[in-house]
Amino acid sequence: MKVSEFNVTNMVDDIQKQNGKIEDVYFVACGGSLIDLYSSEYFVKRESKSMHSAWIPSKEFVLTPPAHLGKNSLVFVCSHGGNTKETVEAADVAYETGAYVITYTHNPQSKCANSKYHSIVYAWESDTPQEEKPMCLTYAILNELIHRQEPEYLLYDSMKDGIEKIDKIIRKAVNDTTNKAWVFSEKYYNEPFLYIMSSGAAYAQSYGFAICSLQEMQWMDCCYINSAEYFHGPFEVTDENHLYILMMSKGKTREIDERALRFLQKYGKKYEVIDAENCGLETIEENCVDYFNAPLFYEMSVLYRTAIENKTRHPLSMRRYMGVVEY
Amino acid sequence: MKVSEFNVTNMVDDIQKQNGKIEDVYFVACGGSLIDLYSSEYFVKRESKSMHSAWIPSKEFVLTPPAHLGKNSLVFVCSHGGNTKETVEAADVAYETGAYVITYTHNPQSKCANSKYHSIVYAWESDTPQEEKPMCLTYAILNELIHRQEPEYLLYDSMKDGIEKIDKIIRKAVNDTTNKAWVFSEKYYNEPFLYIMSSGAAYAQSYGFAICSLQEMQWMDCCYINSAEYFHGPFEVTDENHLYILMMSKGKTREIDERALRFLQKYGKKYEVIDAENCGLETIEENCVDYFNAPLFYEMSVLYRTAIENKTRHPLSMRRYMGVVEY
Repeated sequence: MKVSEFNVTNMVDDIQKQNGKIEDVYFVACGGSLIDLYSSEYFVKRESKSMHSAWIPSKEFVLTPPAHLGKNSLVFVCSHGGNTKETVEAADVAYETGAYVITYTHNPQSKCANSKYHSIVYAWESDTPQEEKPMCLTYAILNELIHRQEPEYLLYDSMKDGIEKIDKIIRKAVNDTTNKAWVFSEKYYNEPFLYIMSSGAAYAQSYGFAICSLQEMQWMDCCYINSAEYFHGPFEVTDENHLYILMMSKGKTREIDERALRFLQKYGKKYEVIDAENCGLETIEENCVDYFNAPLFYEMSVLYRTAIENKTRHPLSMRRYMGVVEY
Repeated sequence: MKVSEFNVTNMVDDIQKQNGKIEDVYFVACGGSLIDLYSSEYFVKRESKSMHSAWIPSKEFVLTPPAHLGKNSLVFVCSHGGNTKETVEAADVAYETGAYVITYTHNPQSKCANSKYHSIVYAWESDTPQEEKPMCLTYAILNELIHRQEPEYLLYDSMKDGIEKIDKIIRKAVNDTTNKAWVFSEKYYNEPFLYIMSSGAAYAQSYGFAICSLQEMQWMDCCYINSAEYFHGPFEVTDENHLYILMMSKGKTREIDERALRFLQKYGKKYEVIDAENCGLETIEENCVDYFNAPLFYEMSVLYRTAIENKTRHPLSMRRYMGVVEY
């Protein structure tokens, strides 16, 4: 179905009618689509007492599926183009076990849009609101499901409120940060290498910034680090010549990012801080604000990569292999 | 207790006596110690129908503990030095909920060796056998526990057999690979940057090779990639100038590594293959061989970093921050 036909109540009704109690939620995709699902996995792991969760690259899921996968599983599968071979395979592996399979895709003609799955075809335009993109659609479905399965669940209203507010917050934050991103790019677009860090539910946004925005779209070398791991190896390379981007979350894991910042201030020189606390997230309730760093940081990575493209003149859509050669 | 006093039957008796049925297994640590626990988490997720598992950096575990953590949880905590602040905090968070907490440490005087946990103090000498190190100790405990909780579990004997055989296999493989590691280092010790890849249960060995062996111990820049993700972004940087290390697993996820190899053969030029199929793993049963790539690749990373040190003359134990300054 198209997002315009999507109704969270109806979908969760259908999940419960068809599969009863959901005990396991799996998040399965490749690359950027997998990254989109990370914060939802984190959400289930920390907030749900009735469900377990796992975040698994498609081909791993196909070759070594989780032992609990089955009738009481809900599986989120995402493929932007909708035909990524291993992701379609993964959807089928899940489908065959009787799991409830929700596929997200941007392409209504793709394999992921097949009616045998519960497919949601999303728009991906600059004016598409956050609540109609996979990250917030997933939050909405899980929020409704946990609410129904767990009488003691406390985040129901605040998550709904956050999903409603986040689009406007992000648009303003991106606007306010544009000049800062240009200045960053002016200084560093030609840097041979950099590290990108973030924490908690937003960790995968470092991973995505690195592998999608820079490695894939700019052929730039870089590495991603979970801020919680920085002091356990990676920080030994830090010095005044190394470049870092630190995306600081608002919420429970913020102190991890703050510790990394203090170190960079003392021993580094070239570091860019993208701080969620300066981005208007204070109107989202504290008990769930952690989960709204991820969509914010995603849009920040788009802003920064566009600023970098503007200097490098390396088109963001240029590929030498993906969709160009056989592999 | 010392490993010499460890008896898997007694320990699992104690787990079951004190905590009854185990439903969740958590693997919690930082850096190298966290890496040591990854393949066990993969093992539980794929092989156990009675337990769920998660792999979580210590500080994340402290600040955002999993919702299922409690009396029916088994928590493995590892800290080589035994006093890593956030790891001790994590052990205490788990302890307070009534979970069964097993702490591994090399330091009998450390906080992790406190008798309030179920501590196992391991030796870490060149002649310490694999079965007395955290990775295989964890396999042994989980293998026994799954066997008791799940009548249909099929890997019991083959895992035991693998744990027994792996030390000899690895010693021979390391010996056979020494010259190859020297030649690699001779060519590439001065390379400004490289990517390291592996798949499945052995993925974290790429992460460890990067953050411990190279970033921490050689102050070398590098990045780690799950082979299953290589074609979804990272491969766009591949060309004849980029250096890769590909650790190819034996077992179910091998085809993922093989696909990456074919691509490197076609579009790359500088790549080092460390292939578990040439390392004597064929005497381990196919149904569980996947889990023995990790200890093999760990020892390979030690071999390669030592070969690199031999050229760079950058002592593997030299630190500019860790244990030297406050942070």
